[in-house]
Amino acid sequence: MSHNTFGHLFRVTTWGESHGVALGCVVDGCPPGIRFTLAELQAWLDKRKPGQSRFVTQRREDDLVKVLSGVMLDDDGETMITTGTPVSMLIENTDQRSKDYGEIAHRYRPGHADYTYDVKYGIRDYRGGGRSSARETAARVAAGGLARKVVPGLVVRAALVQIGKHKIDRNNWDWNEVSNNPFFAPDPAIVPVWEEYLDGIRKAGSSVGAVVEVVAEGVPAGIGAPIYGKLDQDIASLLMSINAVKGVEIGEGFASAELTGEENADEMRMGNDGNPIFLSNHAGGILGGISTGQPVVARFAIKPTSSILTERRSIDADGNNVDVRTKGRHDPCVGIRAVPIGEAMVACAIADHYLRDRGQTGRLTSQGGSAT
Amino acid sequence: MSHNTFGHLFRVTTWGESHGVALGCVVDGCPPGIRFTLAELQAWLDKRKPGQSRFVTQRREDDLVKVLSGVMLDDDGETMITTGTPVSMLIENTDQRSKDYGEIAHRYRPGHADYTYDVKYGIRDYRGGGRSSARETAARVAAGGLARKVVPGLVVRAALVQIGKHKIDRNNWDWNEVSNNPFFAPDPAIVPVWEEYLDGIRKAGSSVGAVVEVVAEGVPAGIGAPIYGKLDQDIASLLMSINAVKGVEIGEGFASAELTGEENADEMRMGNDGNPIFLSNHAGGILGGISTGQPVVARFAIKPTSSILTERRSIDADGNNVDVRTKGRHDPCVGIRAVPIGEAMVACAIADHYLRDRGQTGRLTSQGGSAT
Amino acid sequence: MSHNTFGHLFRVTTWGESHGVALGCVVDGCPPGIRFTLAELQAWLDKRKPGQSRFVTQRREDDLVKVLSGVMLDDDGETMITTGTPVSMLIENTDQRSKDYGEIAHRYRPGHADYTYDVKYGIRDYRGGGRSSARETAARVAAGGLARKVVPGLVVRAALVQIGKHKIDRNNWDWNEVSNNPFFAPDPAIVPVWEEYLDGIRKAGSSVGAVVEVVAEGVPAGIGAPIYGKLDQDIASLLMSINAVKGVEIGEGFASAELTGEENADEMRMGNDGNPIFLSNHAGGILGGISTGQPVVARFAIKPTSSILTERRSIDADGNNVDVRTKGRHDPCVGIRAVPIGEAMVACAIADHYLRDRGQTGRLTSQGGSAT
Amino acid sequence: MSHNTFGHLFRVTTWGESHGVALGCVVDGCPPGIRFTLAELQAWLDKRKPGQSRFVTQRREDDLVKVLSGVMLDDDGETMITTGTPVSMLIENTDQRSKDYGEIAHRYRPGHADYTYDVKYGIRDYRGGGRSSARETAARVAAGGLARKVVPGLVVRAALVQIGKHKIDRNNWDWNEVSNNPFFAPDPAIVPVWEEYLDGIRKAGSSVGAVVEVVAEGVPAGIGAPIYGKLDQDIASLLMSINAVKGVEIGEGFASAELTGEENADEMRMGNDGNPIFLSNHAGGILGGISTGQPVVARFAIKPTSSILTERRSIDADGNNVDVRTKGRHDPCVGIRAVPIGEAMVACAIADHYLRDRGQTGRLTSQGGSAT
Repeated sequence: MSHNTFGHLFRVTTWGESHGVALGCVVDGCPPGIRFTLAELQAWLDKRKPGQSRFVTQRREDDLVKVLSGVMLDDDGETMITTGTPVSMLIENTDQRSKDYGEIAHRYRPGHADYTYDVKYGIRDYRGGGRSSARETAARVAAGGLARKVVPGLVVRAALVQIGKHKIDRNNWDWNEVSNNPFFAPDPAIVPVWEEYLDGIRKAGSSVGAVVEVVAEGVPAGIGAPIYGKLDQDIASLLMSINAVKGVEIGEGFASAELTGEENADEMRMGNDGNPIFLSNHAGGILGGISTGQPVVARFAIKPTSSILTERRSIDADGNNVDVRTKGRHDPCVGIRAVPIGEAMVACAIADHYLRDRGQTGRLTSQGGSAT
Repeated sequence: MSHNTFGHLFRVTTWGESHGVALGCVVDGCPPGIRFTLAELQAWLDKRKPGQSRFVTQRREDDLVKVLSGVMLDDDGETMITTGTPVSMLIENTDQRSKDYGEIAHRYRPGHADYTYDVKYGIRDYRGGGRSSARETAARVAAGGLARKVVPGLVVRAALVQIGKHKIDRNNWDWNEVSNNPFFAPDPAIVPVWEEYLDGIRKAGSSVGAVVEVVAEGVPAGIGAPIYGKLDQDIASLLMSINAVKGVEIGEGFASAELTGEENADEMRMGNDGNPIFLSNHAGGILGGISTGQPVVARFAIKPTSSILTERRSIDADGNNVDVRTKGRHDPCVGIRAVPIGEAMVACAIADHYLRDRGQTGRLTSQGGSAT
Repeated sequence: MSHNTFGHLFRVTTWGESHGVALGCVVDGCPPGIRFTLAELQAWLDKRKPGQSRFVTQRREDDLVKVLSGVMLDDDGETMITTGTPVSMLIENTDQRSKDYGEIAHRYRPGHADYTYDVKYGIRDYRGGGRSSARETAARVAAGGLARKVVPGLVVRAALVQIGKHKIDRNNWDWNEVSNNPFFAPDPAIVPVWEEYLDGIRKAGSSVGAVVEVVAEGVPAGIGAPIYGKLDQDIASLLMSINAVKGVEIGEGFASAELTGEENADEMRMGNDGNPIFLSNHAGGILGGISTGQPVVARFAIKPTSSILTERRSIDADGNNVDVRTKGRHDPCVGIRAVPIGEAMVACAIADHYLRDRGQTGRLTSQGGSAT
Repeated sequence: MSHNTFGHLFRVTTWGESHGVALGCVVDGCPPGIRFTLAELQAWLDKRKPGQSRFVTQRREDDLVKVLSGVMLDDDGETMITTGTPVSMLIENTDQRSKDYGEIAHRYRPGHADYTYDVKYGIRDYRGGGRSSARETAARVAAGGLARKVVPGLVVRAALVQIGKHKIDRNNWDWNEVSNNPFFAPDPAIVPVWEEYLDGIRKAGSSVGAVVEVVAEGVPAGIGAPIYGKLDQDIASLLMSINAVKGVEIGEGFASAELTGEENADEMRMGNDGNPIFLSNHAGGILGGISTGQPVVARFAIKPTSSILTERRSIDADGNNVDVRTKGRHDPCVGIRAVPIGEAMVACAIADHYLRDRGQTGRLTSQGGSAT
């Protein structure tokens, strides 16, 4: 495949299949001197792991992350300190039910990567979707946990803003609410609406799409690399690489098509502290591919998973017409679990650009900033 | 900057500023044996060049492309044949009016990259936007002209589908109409609407956003490289790298958030010719990052240019509050000229993935396909 | 560090420290349909593993390799078949004696990377050399085991040709002898000479340098990528990346400085089978960065390890003058164990270029060749 | 080809053929604020240009370099200041005599890349060697001129140390002598020896090999990126990419095979200024892939050019046996003109690693260092 790595100086390589022994990643380029605990890292993985509510897949995975290299233990026996060498992280698979998938070994599920993998590779690990399964994203979330530590003061948060036709009311936005419901919804008023709607979807063995919004605060101005390494470009690329994502926006996104130049331009004034103040953020924190210092705002759309109980017309590997329905355990709305994944991708993109700008070693720390 | 190159095997490096001597690109990885004429290449550049209607900037540039390396002339004295070495292409700048920009040398135009370039680099070629100007995209279009030749049978076309709130009627879609109006509109009925609307925008010295749709036909199934080199990911990345683009969609895009799994899955049946037939194309021709053989469909949103005649609040390089309005010649709707640029970016992404799959040399030709 | 990956389409990322839990690699870009057994892979690792004679370090490591992803088991329950997804391989560390190294935690061993790692990173895993230890090369050998399978008919072999001033007699060269002595010597006559010489070095707690020669047969003509991805360039780069290597040659190497053009040119004649025959191979199988179809020949020089029992003058991390001698278990001639490592590096370089030329997927197989 | 670019943050892409319109390069990643004059740049090109003595090719090229982008002129109208955008440089070809090469259009010169290019690409620009000509190195020298400016205090010099069997006496080494003779010899005593020897070679229409040594002073300690982006590895890679180079050494190089650990280890003592002092430099300034702060020392061997007047046996493109001798103008010892090329390659490698460590923008300047 050759293309299971992303990043230019903060480089992440992931590996592993849904029903293999394990999956993991190698984070290469993590600066030395970053301090973290396994518990901190695990917290991000817990946010993504399956089986946490009736609205996500019932597969049971603890998703316990192990760190195999790249760190030394501090004297407290708990804090890990990066040494600048590759951080290899591993997550074991424990709850595979591969026999659920026997039926689809030679049948292409419509809307899945089954057909395209077979065309491209001529061989395919059909168990649980193999490499194309969203289980791969556990490794991204682990990498994102480190990326968050690379940029001093960086805070990356995401929330679900739409399920089906039901959108949140942005006036209700409260980050504190995100962890209070199984949807990562920032608007408590939407929660009962989504519950009722998704219960219907779930009971029908159906699925539905969603939209996630990611906001990164504490991004220093001047990060980004025109022309073909723009910060928004790299964020778009990484968000689009998440399973089932079909659209990405920065700032106003598609709505900017309807705006005039007067409406869209983010005016500036000089602040009392000698730093510029932007009077709006239509740009989503990025101009010309370079960060403005405002929050970076991105959104992405996730299609409904094609793993549904209703039969759909398809073909098999031998070229026969068949009808396929997907057994196994699946997410009625995969968008929910995409929330921590989106955070991880944006954190990784920002960390990478930060290091391009500041250099790859601990010198960033020694120049006054703090990497922790 | 370090990041003025894109592509993995079909690699394009662009260079040049809006008001410099020239701009150009080096296309590295173009397979040997590709045949083309300068006239063919120029035709793509003519489509993008400024000054062709009252709805685009009145800067007059012939945008004549020269090929400096990487080809041998065929006996007809006209057809160029690539040799597999880098193709260097150059376009001279002829109609710079740099004095128009003296006023903004130290003032940051809101919504432009002026401020971010200064923060990042501490120095900035302010004339015509320097490197951040969309003049850079002439080089992309030249590269795209070669990319189109790399994949036998590939046809990449684009059209403008929305200006401001005014969208085309998709039932009227006719590719033949695209060249019959100054907007690249596929729906003749929208033309008078857009004319009237844009005339108002133009006379007010204002600007407005737009949406472009790109469709690539003839993409072989099996092209793409999961997990972090997905075809849709690379298309998203390149479209997002175009100046002023704020959103990218593949297939259903953001609309997929509202669909159920039943609605969204593209069902399949075996065709009489032994090839699979997809009964719909919600996926936009890509599943799991790999092409299905259906048309690849992408859309992108362009924000209104911030170069407007109305004064906006801003600051200057010395930290003073100033009011800025942009003189010089500008596009009331930069989305129009983004149409051939979007085509070029999609063609380059597909050519790159095609070569990843088939190899970098002329062997693709010798195996029965035709590179011309 | 950001730079623990090599290769463009056959990409290898290694991770792990000498005294950590484990080390390993991710091979990304291995084509689908490659068949191998764990025993085949293990055989390469066994060739490199420590403790096999008195002339190498007495550290005892089984170096058992595990394959965690990227394969499916064939029906025989033993043969693994690659699927085109990343192959993650892991080797556990079992015989660390970290306390041997307590003394050098803050002292810089002359000739080691201790000082430079501290300068660069400000923190260093001193146990067994940490990441700078040659234990990392176990992962390279595992990757090389797969690389050998990528190119049909490829055979990569290496031999030790010099220890200290004692060189083999090239007229005695017999590949069959290489496995008959603990030095990988192709000349049986040199074995007693090296035994006596190295016994002296070993008992004195000293060390000595060596030269390894690698020969790759079965490399198709036309592999390589000028100008900055030349096959010899990539081989030189990878051989130079091996611990303690200080020089690399292709073909005649430094001896070519003494030759005339008449002597050095490899003349050609047409063979009866319609393929060209080269009458000599001064070029080492590569011209203009591209393979000629002759055997690819490379040599590299390994310096003596600086881990010696004699005290040397140095400094410590606090800037004090100290005298350092290295306890722990070490190789009197690290060049011996470099033989399988050199093979692995050359195999990986060739596999990478083969895939650049032929494409990244199983199509190479389907076009008549056989990947096994 | 896809591989005409080198560098990770200081990226150089070259293009052009020996007998095309022009050749050039794009330097991407040059930090902003670097100040230079065209005369400074030209001085490096003049050192490499042909026709300067009877010992090099008599082709007459002025090799005048033009800067097309990436700079602004300072008020003095002469000093160029980089803006951080790609610096495109162009050198026109003026003295092509393509008809000299008609005879070899379909004949493969032994020892040249003629055959391998034809095998790989199936088409070849035979005029003057096309892309495989050493004329390409003019672009490297131009890029090197910028690279030298990136690292404050960096001085990169090279000298010829061997022609044929005739080596300099290292005890005579005097950098001031290098510019006093047509060989870049640091030892005046060798000059008459080389003159007489090369006159004989030249008159016989023959050629001979050589060895060049490059020394870089002012390299900060801590530059380099293990494991696969080692500074010595990148230097080896770039030196090996130079036409006709067959071997590369760092520090003691192949001689280290004969040394014991005691002899080879560079002992250290603390200096009065608080900086470590190395008591020798067998390592050539690099340990574990990272610079020690000592001079970086590299050597490379250049084979004799295969363009000789004596007939050699070969084949043509149709598979016929032919005898070939090379007309046209050529270098009796291409190693002479390799001296400034070697300097350029080492300067580029160091600049790239410096930026990886310190970051890609002008911040390096603002932190106290000076980029000029």
